[in-house]
Amino acid sequence: MSLPSHGANPSHLYRASGVMKPSSVMDFSVNTNPYGPPNWLKEMWPSFFEAVEDYPDPSGYKAAKLIAERFALSPENIMLGNGAAEIIHFIARHAAGQKVVIVTPAFSEYEEACRAYGCRTEYVPVDVQNWKLPIEILVEQAKEAAVLFICTPNNPTGQVFQTEDLLTLLKETRSFGTMIVIDEAFYDFAGDESITSEITSFSHLAVLHSMTKMYAVAGLRIGYLAASKEIINKLKPYRPHWNVNAIALQVAQKIASDAEYAVRTRKWIDKERERMIRELMMIGFVVLPSAVNFYLIKDSALDNQKPLLQFLLKQGIVLRHTENFHGLDGQWLRAAIKKEQENDQLLSALKEWKSQC
Amino acid sequence: MSLPSHGANPSHLYRASGVMKPSSVMDFSVNTNPYGPPNWLKEMWPSFFEAVEDYPDPSGYKAAKLIAERFALSPENIMLGNGAAEIIHFIARHAAGQKVVIVTPAFSEYEEACRAYGCRTEYVPVDVQNWKLPIEILVEQAKEAAVLFICTPNNPTGQVFQTEDLLTLLKETRSFGTMIVIDEAFYDFAGDESITSEITSFSHLAVLHSMTKMYAVAGLRIGYLAASKEIINKLKPYRPHWNVNAIALQVAQKIASDAEYAVRTRKWIDKERERMIRELMMIGFVVLPSAVNFYLIKDSALDNQKPLLQFLLKQGIVLRHTENFHGLDGQWLRAAIKKEQENDQLLSALKEWKSQC
Repeated sequence: MSLPSHGANPSHLYRASGVMKPSSVMDFSVNTNPYGPPNWLKEMWPSFFEAVEDYPDPSGYKAAKLIAERFALSPENIMLGNGAAEIIHFIARHAAGQKVVIVTPAFSEYEEACRAYGCRTEYVPVDVQNWKLPIEILVEQAKEAAVLFICTPNNPTGQVFQTEDLLTLLKETRSFGTMIVIDEAFYDFAGDESITSEITSFSHLAVLHSMTKMYAVAGLRIGYLAASKEIINKLKPYRPHWNVNAIALQVAQKIASDAEYAVRTRKWIDKERERMIRELMMIGFVVLPSAVNFYLIKDSALDNQKPLLQFLLKQGIVLRHTENFHGLDGQWLRAAIKKEQENDQLLSALKEWKSQC
Repeated sequence: MSLPSHGANPSHLYRASGVMKPSSVMDFSVNTNPYGPPNWLKEMWPSFFEAVEDYPDPSGYKAAKLIAERFALSPENIMLGNGAAEIIHFIARHAAGQKVVIVTPAFSEYEEACRAYGCRTEYVPVDVQNWKLPIEILVEQAKEAAVLFICTPNNPTGQVFQTEDLLTLLKETRSFGTMIVIDEAFYDFAGDESITSEITSFSHLAVLHSMTKMYAVAGLRIGYLAASKEIINKLKPYRPHWNVNAIALQVAQKIASDAEYAVRTRKWIDKERERMIRELMMIGFVVLPSAVNFYLIKDSALDNQKPLLQFLLKQGIVLRHTENFHGLDGQWLRAAIKKEQENDQLLSALKEWKSQC
């Protein structure tokens, strides 16, 4: 049985791994804010009940307008999705039967969606230990492609491509008719730098965002695309009517006006990430530098990290395998930054692993 | 400016019609249960907050299992969707570039989704005043089609095709490789007869359901398809990960166990529908017989009903235009059965219209 293609929902991983699921499990495979959603969400929850009965506004205009304002854009530049995953499917539909280039390693949903739409997928690998966008190769590959996917801050490596390199790539591909999709699902964990406002300069740029990660609302499904009206109008026909539920629309409006929560979260996470990486290296693990709320780790004594994954599963600690990430192929594990106490439990378990080796 | 392609969200219709929206509006264009959601939904609402943070189970297994049990099927026969609209898009994707047959008039989303996927759409009209499935024509048309859509109880006419006729059609198309999609979004308003369990006899039958209408949860987005594993497996790759939000999954589980609410609602609606149709005919309107919670109405002095639609809009009463329903083309208006007092207000407004003619 193959391992599940995504993190979260650890029961699936336990079933697939043949490890008995302990009664209590700590899920480091899910990359959402460990501090949970902002307090206002719980306070406002009763008021959202009113939205249950009516059809949601199919255009999500109010939420789109508030999101647009954050990036000094127009609401027509924003398309809301039932999670970013749905928008990835619209993009794959746009590229149906054509060539798609994916800079790897990357979020596995690009590949899955492209497969469903019969795209010819080309992978351009980046060395995870020497993280730099291979511009020349990408320009060459983009020439005949309908879409090029880049994930930065990168899931699963946690690393960030240089904005200058992204801009160079955008300039050099301007005349190709290739849509350059930059997935910034984790941008607000890395700082507030975003390439989003560049969509006014580059009509072939589409920037993908998620509210799931920073605001810990994975259950509600809210993502969005910022792009030129040209791109948005191309993708619109693929969107089922009322695709974003009414609760998600209400919450999206509030989130669009709450940048402060991201600032506070970043401060916590940055400190905790630095501590974890320092301690993990001290006990002998290889850890990649990360700008966000997760990192790649490996025991260099192992080629494939499955034994370590299984060891941790037995202790109720779930890391994300990397079997279905091109270029990683199981040689790393991904771990989220969680609260201090949980991170400490991961450290103890990893110390125990090392002491047994 | 053309009229919106769907009912609900009346602000769009007011804008498109150039009629000032009064401060208070009664929306007869939306076909959901006028008594709102079951009481347990409000009572349980606070408990659903816990589901916000975690990713929903991508397979929606618990809800699928409970739904399957209602029809004596297996969970593998159920595919959950972000509303039935999303599943219609998966079906259109399956038929991409191929012939699709739509029995008309019908829910306009079939046509919109098929257009997005470049299907060649053929319409087979049914005379709304002599409601019977044209089996011979359909068998002939189905021969080279990837998909055939039938909506029964029919949206927008409110009428029901004979089960015998549907079974004859299923038998005669069995060897064609054509997927026969029967949309039963309103079946529980018409009684508890459903063709769903026939999927075990016909592997080319797919039955579409919605929880939105009877349980008045349009804001949450919950629909499902019941079909052979063969069909479900064909459609699965088109489904974005985590497509049904976590609140919808929780509510779907409860709804699957609450058939009683449908029984009670039907009793109310049947009585109120009979009263309305009787009174409307008495004041001189033409009304089609209906088995569900809405009906078609026209003033036979008008060919296109736009003047009547506009007259009602000015009074804050929103009916559903039929401009984008094949075979109706604006010659009828669709009205939902609402609560007694609101129905009375519609009656008064229509009497006033008649007195002015």
